[in-house]
Amino acid sequence: MKVKVLILPKKGLLEPEGRAVREMLRDEGFSVREVRVGKVVELEVEEGTDVRAIAEKYLVNPLVEEYVIE
Amino acid sequence: MKVKVLILPKKGLLEPEGRAVREMLRDEGFSVREVRVGKVVELEVEEGTDVRAIAEKYLVNPLVEEYVIE
Repeated sequence: MKVKVLILPKKGLLEPEGRAVREMLRDEGFSVREVRVGKVVELEVEEGTDVRAIAEKYLVNPLVEEYVIE
Repeated sequence: MKVKVLILPKKGLLEPEGRAVREMLRDEGFSVREVRVGKVVELEVEEGTDVRAIAEKYLVNPLVEEYVIE
């Protein structure tokens, strides 16, 4: 099965890349309230694999990141 | 509205970060067929914003990346 783990910096954290994208888009005339830039990890694993365990143990830093599995 | 642009390296491209994650997970005993590591850009924009245009013009390199909007 294919699953995606979406990892984003927690809201409110200083996030330079997101801020840079936001400013650039505003300069280009888009009305952008907020931008966060994070990582997506697409995994092709066997049915039944504990993707949550993989995410929490190896992929996500819970101090500064939040994640969702899709 | 909030939208996410998921950007992944095209399949078949040499993708060192994905390969590293795959090998690490295999070493840890997980049965992982493939891993791709990409970016997720979460945008908070006004209703009706042409997110596809933003993605294609500013966020995605179509030579080496593919994307989906969620």
